[in-house]
Amino acid sequence: MYAIGVNLDLTNITAGVVNEQGQILSKESIPTLRYRPLSEVVADLAALVKRVAEAADVDLQTEIDHVGIGTYGTIDRRTGTLIYSAQFGFRDVPLLAEVKKHLSLPVYIENDANCYALAESHWGATKGYKNSVIVTLGTTISGGIVINHEVYHGAFFGAGEFGHHVIVMDGEKCECGRRGCWAAYASSTALVRDARIAAIRHPESEMFRMVNGDLRLMSYHIPFEAAKKGDVYALDVVHMFRRYVALGLINIVNILQPDAIAIGGKLRKIGHEFIDGVSALVYEKAFGQNEKAKTEIKLADMGYDAVIIGAAMLKPWKE
Amino acid sequence: MYAIGVNLDLTNITAGVVNEQGQILSKESIPTLRYRPLSEVVADLAALVKRVAEAADVDLQTEIDHVGIGTYGTIDRRTGTLIYSAQFGFRDVPLLAEVKKHLSLPVYIENDANCYALAESHWGATKGYKNSVIVTLGTTISGGIVINHEVYHGAFFGAGEFGHHVIVMDGEKCECGRRGCWAAYASSTALVRDARIAAIRHPESEMFRMVNGDLRLMSYHIPFEAAKKGDVYALDVVHMFRRYVALGLINIVNILQPDAIAIGGKLRKIGHEFIDGVSALVYEKAFGQNEKAKTEIKLADMGYDAVIIGAAMLKPWKE
Repeated sequence: MYAIGVNLDLTNITAGVVNEQGQILSKESIPTLRYRPLSEVVADLAALVKRVAEAADVDLQTEIDHVGIGTYGTIDRRTGTLIYSAQFGFRDVPLLAEVKKHLSLPVYIENDANCYALAESHWGATKGYKNSVIVTLGTTISGGIVINHEVYHGAFFGAGEFGHHVIVMDGEKCECGRRGCWAAYASSTALVRDARIAAIRHPESEMFRMVNGDLRLMSYHIPFEAAKKGDVYALDVVHMFRRYVALGLINIVNILQPDAIAIGGKLRKIGHEFIDGVSALVYEKAFGQNEKAKTEIKLADMGYDAVIIGAAMLKPWKE
Repeated sequence: MYAIGVNLDLTNITAGVVNEQGQILSKESIPTLRYRPLSEVVADLAALVKRVAEAADVDLQTEIDHVGIGTYGTIDRRTGTLIYSAQFGFRDVPLLAEVKKHLSLPVYIENDANCYALAESHWGATKGYKNSVIVTLGTTISGGIVINHEVYHGAFFGAGEFGHHVIVMDGEKCECGRRGCWAAYASSTALVRDARIAAIRHPESEMFRMVNGDLRLMSYHIPFEAAKKGDVYALDVVHMFRRYVALGLINIVNILQPDAIAIGGKLRKIGHEFIDGVSALVYEKAFGQNEKAKTEIKLADMGYDAVIIGAAMLKPWKE
């Protein structure tokens, strides 16, 4: 049997036929165009599901066990309701009911970071670890928790909001409305903000030169590249960013002490050198870490396909 | 059958015979006198175990299933080794092997906060909740996590170190050697420190008057009592303390989203009014909290006996 995994995000809907080894047989993306009625988004999603099945030459009714959808926000796994999504601007949306109008297969809906965590823990960076965490460092920070090889949802399907734990009380404003959240320091948005501030203060800096004085061109790559060229202001931005990332990870270790934490999201592209620096800080500072007992800090290695693969791995909900 | 639970702490060794309903039939405390060889402490502990069995008129060999010991620090539940305790100044101490020299019964050793969490989740404030957390606010902060009605230990038996998650990066010095930990803001030690600073700055304050100008007499009760009398400086200390406590709880909710958090430790004696104020902040600020989905913030209700009762509830370790 096969399953179809769908990643419904702000920009694209991507669907793929996945086999039982976690391999994608066919895949296609279409734009989400999210500023239109949900019914239209879902109609496109259902048509996409049918197309990828055809492309993989598998029969939707007899060869596909179920469709799994990973998407933003807090999802009620029992009912397939999107309880809350700040990004989509949704509250209590009956997504499953809408999808079922188009598809007569079983459909399961799950938070995308939880799908990511599920896939990485079975096929990827956290494979084989009993308790693991995935943290996605991107424009914001999200995450998923795996305990006893299963996704841990918390009381109301909202566990793992690592980005919104506070590391600096009354600190930088966060998109969630509070202040001092980890996401306000260790996301790409925060890094770009800090790089812009450093560059505008120091027009003599390599960072300023690299954007030709146009701060709109600042990206998360630039402070790292400028730091390699010896820009002291970029070195400071990168150094502080490393501390911010490490601090949140240390907090996760001190609370959950997982066997491993995998870093996903676009900032994983900064690469191993950055993660090694972060890991060193975590090992030095976190409680009870030593050569015999280390929470492994790793790069996630399945990329964006992990959400599709994890969504395809979903099972019927049981309490 | 019965079990004997032991609370081995810095000041006292307390042992009790506990029945299968979590009731203590006999109990006795002796001083730990911890600045002596471990062998002497353990010999006293074993003699105490025998005495409480006699006092309850139960036969140690035929009517006691096991002895459970709750103590400070990170404990290897498999081997009964005290891996690390900052307070006791222990590292890799084979506590179980030492105890077994004196007792021929099965002996299980567990972190005291985990015993506390276990007892409260079966007989106390967090009874009936699938996922719960206990936080002990005392001279420092410790905690235990219950997931699926069982204690969650983390990868190396060190999960639940809530007191050492950072809420103010580079903030107040913590006893653990780092800066900005929750324990450096929301413990009784921190509260007393902040009350002293406010009192010495304001000799006209009610707090200063209550200690007759002798700051050594400051206790965690005083700012609360002075605040009730309208001391504005005490009100400020209490207000900030409430925010510190709430902030750490919000972080726990955003990461773990348990069904309930119970507050234990001596600061629970501040009472319901304080907890209600803290709860209101948690509900307002934590992710995904609303009338339908609230992490309950409660006072632990079993007191110090919870460690004995939880220790008596320990079972043989299985992976």
